Amino acid sequence: MKIGILTSGGDCPGLNAVIRAIVLKGTSVYSQQFVGFRDGWRGLVEGDVIPLDRHRVRGLAKQGGTILGTSRFGPYEGPSGGPENIQKTLDRLGVDAVIAIGGEGTQAASKRLADAGIKIIGVPKTIDNDLGATDYTFGFDTAVEIATEAIDRLRTTGDSHKRCMVLEVMGRHVGWIALHSGMAGGAHAILIPEQPVSIDQIVTWVESVRDRGRAPLLVVAEGFTLDTMDEAYSTKGLDGFNRPRLGGIAEILAPMIEQRTGIESRATVLGHIQRGGVPTAYDRVLATRLGLAAIDTVLAERWGNMVALRGTEVQVVGLDEALGELKTVPQHRYDEAAILFG
Amino acid sequence: MKIGILTSGGDCPGLNAVIRAIVLKGTSVYSQQFVGFRDGWRGLVEGDVIPLDRHRVRGLAKQGGTILGTSRFGPYEGPSGGPENIQKTLDRLGVDAVIAIGGEGTQAASKRLADAGIKIIGVPKTIDNDLGATDYTFGFDTAVEIATEAIDRLRTTGDSHKRCMVLEVMGRHVGWIALHSGMAGGAHAILIPEQPVSIDQIVTWVESVRDRGRAPLLVVAEGFTLDTMDEAYSTKGLDGFNRPRLGGIAEILAPMIEQRTGIESRATVLGHIQRGGVPTAYDRVLATRLGLAAIDTVLAERWGNMVALRGTEVQVVGLDEALGELKTVPQHRYDEAAILFG
Amino acid sequence: MKIGILTSGGDCPGLNAVIRAIVLKGTSVYSQQFVGFRDGWRGLVEGDVIPLDRHRVRGLAKQGGTILGTSRFGPYEGPSGGPENIQKTLDRLGVDAVIAIGGEGTQAASKRLADAGIKIIGVPKTIDNDLGATDYTFGFDTAVEIATEAIDRLRTTGDSHKRCMVLEVMGRHVGWIALHSGMAGGAHAILIPEQPVSIDQIVTWVESVRDRGRAPLLVVAEGFTLDTMDEAYSTKGLDGFNRPRLGGIAEILAPMIEQRTGIESRATVLGHIQRGGVPTAYDRVLATRLGLAAIDTVLAERWGNMVALRGTEVQVVGLDEALGELKTVPQHRYDEAAILFG
Amino acid sequence: MKIGILTSGGDCPGLNAVIRAIVLKGTSVYSQQFVGFRDGWRGLVEGDVIPLDRHRVRGLAKQGGTILGTSRFGPYEGPSGGPENIQKTLDRLGVDAVIAIGGEGTQAASKRLADAGIKIIGVPKTIDNDLGATDYTFGFDTAVEIATEAIDRLRTTGDSHKRCMVLEVMGRHVGWIALHSGMAGGAHAILIPEQPVSIDQIVTWVESVRDRGRAPLLVVAEGFTLDTMDEAYSTKGLDGFNRPRLGGIAEILAPMIEQRTGIESRATVLGHIQRGGVPTAYDRVLATRLGLAAIDTVLAERWGNMVALRGTEVQVVGLDEALGELKTVPQHRYDEAAILFG
Repeated sequence: MKIGILTSGGDCPGLNAVIRAIVLKGTSVYSQQFVGFRDGWRGLVEGDVIPLDRHRVRGLAKQGGTILGTSRFGPYEGPSGGPENIQKTLDRLGVDAVIAIGGEGTQAASKRLADAGIKIIGVPKTIDNDLGATDYTFGFDTAVEIATEAIDRLRTTGDSHKRCMVLEVMGRHVGWIALHSGMAGGAHAILIPEQPVSIDQIVTWVESVRDRGRAPLLVVAEGFTLDTMDEAYSTKGLDGFNRPRLGGIAEILAPMIEQRTGIESRATVLGHIQRGGVPTAYDRVLATRLGLAAIDTVLAERWGNMVALRGTEVQVVGLDEALGELKTVPQHRYDEAAILFG
Repeated sequence: MKIGILTSGGDCPGLNAVIRAIVLKGTSVYSQQFVGFRDGWRGLVEGDVIPLDRHRVRGLAKQGGTILGTSRFGPYEGPSGGPENIQKTLDRLGVDAVIAIGGEGTQAASKRLADAGIKIIGVPKTIDNDLGATDYTFGFDTAVEIATEAIDRLRTTGDSHKRCMVLEVMGRHVGWIALHSGMAGGAHAILIPEQPVSIDQIVTWVESVRDRGRAPLLVVAEGFTLDTMDEAYSTKGLDGFNRPRLGGIAEILAPMIEQRTGIESRATVLGHIQRGGVPTAYDRVLATRLGLAAIDTVLAERWGNMVALRGTEVQVVGLDEALGELKTVPQHRYDEAAILFG
Repeated sequence: MKIGILTSGGDCPGLNAVIRAIVLKGTSVYSQQFVGFRDGWRGLVEGDVIPLDRHRVRGLAKQGGTILGTSRFGPYEGPSGGPENIQKTLDRLGVDAVIAIGGEGTQAASKRLADAGIKIIGVPKTIDNDLGATDYTFGFDTAVEIATEAIDRLRTTGDSHKRCMVLEVMGRHVGWIALHSGMAGGAHAILIPEQPVSIDQIVTWVESVRDRGRAPLLVVAEGFTLDTMDEAYSTKGLDGFNRPRLGGIAEILAPMIEQRTGIESRATVLGHIQRGGVPTAYDRVLATRLGLAAIDTVLAERWGNMVALRGTEVQVVGLDEALGELKTVPQHRYDEAAILFG
Repeated sequence: MKIGILTSGGDCPGLNAVIRAIVLKGTSVYSQQFVGFRDGWRGLVEGDVIPLDRHRVRGLAKQGGTILGTSRFGPYEGPSGGPENIQKTLDRLGVDAVIAIGGEGTQAASKRLADAGIKIIGVPKTIDNDLGATDYTFGFDTAVEIATEAIDRLRTTGDSHKRCMVLEVMGRHVGWIALHSGMAGGAHAILIPEQPVSIDQIVTWVESVRDRGRAPLLVVAEGFTLDTMDEAYSTKGLDGFNRPRLGGIAEILAPMIEQRTGIESRATVLGHIQRGGVPTAYDRVLATRLGLAAIDTVLAERWGNMVALRGTEVQVVGLDEALGELKTVPQHRYDEAAILFG
């Protein structure tokens, strides 16, 4: 049996650890052969593969990124896309089954392909922790750790200058990274897409912190929006035309807070460093366990399924379970954290 | 209501984060007062307390250790020990309830005291992850991360010198730290108390790695023993009298491996650095959530219970659930990891 | 003798270590008393002090920021500024001498005050390493380490996506942080204020890297400017009016590179996390040694001087030596690094 | 011109960065060819080489260890050793010159070979910082950083348990790592081979710290010895026969301190993790600069010389300068640190 592996979507610490675990167990226990599709679905659609063996995956448990490359290319793109063409390509390459490592979009595509007969199983991947059917995914813990270290650093500068520091972290649609790093770092407010908060409320928190003699520190997910964004833009002296040129939400909030409270405020946008580099031990263990379970799932021919973490165990769940609703921060988790605000 | 907090047993990253969360929520939401008992049960038995307020717990989310001090003193020790004396001390201090943060021994004592009428609830704490009724406890993730970073460092030296490196990590009775750090670090064998392994098997793994041109790296929990310890001792040239003076198991294994395989071997005993210092973000979040739930549990007057992590949620469980059997590494988790040995 | 300490200018890892060393040696060896001026020169001008003793500086060797607070307030500002008023304030407070920890502006002010008779000595502080008369200053090594870790993380994401990553680090007038972190991280180009480089040259380097099959990674100091900034602005679709609203130079360069080369490009602006948090061991040692030498210099009554690192030794130099020209990256250091570009 | 590179002696973070810099500059600027000798002098003596080109050194700036392997084999060992045989081997391989990266022993051997006509230059390498003629060597900063992080972690556990923590770091003959990490970590005493200190003095320091209400923390270099080692052994209940089986000096000191002071004391031996893994940015920059200078020195045909750091500049010095006396910690550096003891 020859199995193809692909990594799709944004970079994520732990991708290489999944690949390594699949190949090590697949070769030593099941005597299978492996290829990697280059740059995600593009490699599958175009039949662009590299051989994968034990030697090739050596040392990958701790290596960030993906040796296979990744892209946002979809399996239905281009003249060679779609299940029929893909099956022909697989036949031509002698590849019997596919393991697709990726986020919500990837798993939705995998589901469609599985329904059309492609022998495919999924491994969930998302920095943002927004995928249902799995308690956590690898990459999230690393992103939270990096954001928390940034908070630790910003705090000393905020305290020394009595400034309000606003840190923007990843999370376009969900606020998990902000929630966990903000709680770990002792942030005075955590602003997430799931929870609309007015600038008045933010100002109240900030002033409450200042009145206790401390320097306010806020964590904001990139997808958070104020209910009064017009005011946000006008504070920056921008009309509608210029809006796309604005930086992130932190760069909108900091001057608003400064204007309203008189507290010198500074924005930091953490950006891509959250999704690269050496994974935490937690993410390496999770990624390795998911990889080991993925190859078992292939051998069990449970196509159309995905491996997932539930409590302390790795299980096999239907791809459809993972799809549909994004896993947002539930109200009780936000309320739990909000007790420490202000 | 006035509540007393104590931390008992070995140091553990996250203790301060629990204390901080209890006090912040207890004062701001419930308007309670707090004291800390110094040095674990000793402070409770002897009525040795320090006041705790919002100001005192500032900045503790990231601070390792415990500001209350800890010891291995038990609540039944000394002339002032035992539930009757303790209740008198609590009455004298005006303390209405106790939150005891500690491991298996501490929670067993809490159970006895609760059965005797003391208003007490527990927060689980163990570096070793050996406590039932909770998926994980704070401190474990930090210990695993530190051990994993040590493996990453040892690996380059092993490779450069073609040496066999043996790293000893914590785990007197259970092998969780070894299992997770070994998997994260890509160890070639993981030796834990739960799984007897012969020196012949270890030598087979080591030689298999060497034959592939690599430098073997082994992780061993301190509580692992060879089934043939006599040979171990005789390799070190020691008779029974001298055995207690031996270092850890790593220092026994390394010379045995070198003698049997001819591969230069080196032992490293990681020791106390695994249980001190800044907690990982994961442990800070878990410790904070347990602290927040602990104060709710006090307010709900659910004496004799303990807060615990189940999946992604913090729940309240009976103290008796946490006791009894140590949570050892189950067979399927060992087998899962063992596929990557050799 | 009573001595006052102040920290002035931007936050910098190691400030607290200097304060600690001064107070520990000053109290234990010389039996002196200490106060700290709050928020830099403001505390001196306004006579706003806090007492400093051994207990107060406990644990500060590793703590980022400054417990005294800092600001950009100058000693000639306000109705109480200037040497005569300051001397009166010192007399009123019973303070005999001042140690001013700060950068070029602070040391220039210290020089003026010393010339006017104030008993003052300086400790150099600059993240940017732009101060003459001292080989290095504390804070620089920490900033370089943080920037290097960011490069390590960005590299995996760049490689996985075949993107060009552009990292902007601190350095408004000098490129030391960019030079050292770029060399440590293996950057394919380092762009610094001291060295004008055309966009054509940058494109040549980027394409050369791409043609070798690798993902280009550039480090740019915030003060770097293109000789053709008009093109930069027009690429962002901005006319002169909107220029101040642009983000940093990385956000100008990334779209220009993408437009010219067709390589997807991403900017990251590291910002304030470079100047906060736990100092590296190097910076702690340097800051401690400078503090120890500073109190000796006070006792020797060598007013108007500054402590400085020369080779492996801490020496006393005239404040005038430290002033005048910024210490820029010399041509031979740039050429040395540039060999590895492209 | 074809140039051979070797790395000799103990592992050291930065070795790979030197190799990378040599090969990158040598191929791109000077169009030279390179081979690496495997396992230090053994590869040279036995003619065991691997080709080195730009592709082979990719990503090595941050990678610990040495891709060439290292050993303690000497160039005069075996039937093929000695300058005449070595010259024949070089001729056979077509290698024109040798760059030897190593410590005192390596450079002494290089000097002998250079004097006998071998075209060889040296790059200094020592974790211990014990080599004269250079201010610092790569690897030392990384070792100090790792030891300092260990101190930070041990401190919280010491404080929580009111224990005396004794950390043993590398330094068989010189105490530089202990001196710098102890100063950075705020140790209460630093014990180094250069400075005999009695157990009475140590006890005085420890009790002084305890009397101030703090937990004592000591850093000891592995080569430190008590002037009364007989007492040390007898405390452990050992006679002369068993002495070699003792662990390190920390494991001798801790029980002595406990016996004398009644303070519970714990030893930690840091061991091999000090010399492996990712180098600090400081060490990467230094290693890279030394590598770049080394290839220039070869091109200048300055055989028998070594590259060295002097202040902020890399210079070429005679190999004989680097030899002779070990660079020990001078009295004034010890006195400077000792002010903070107790």
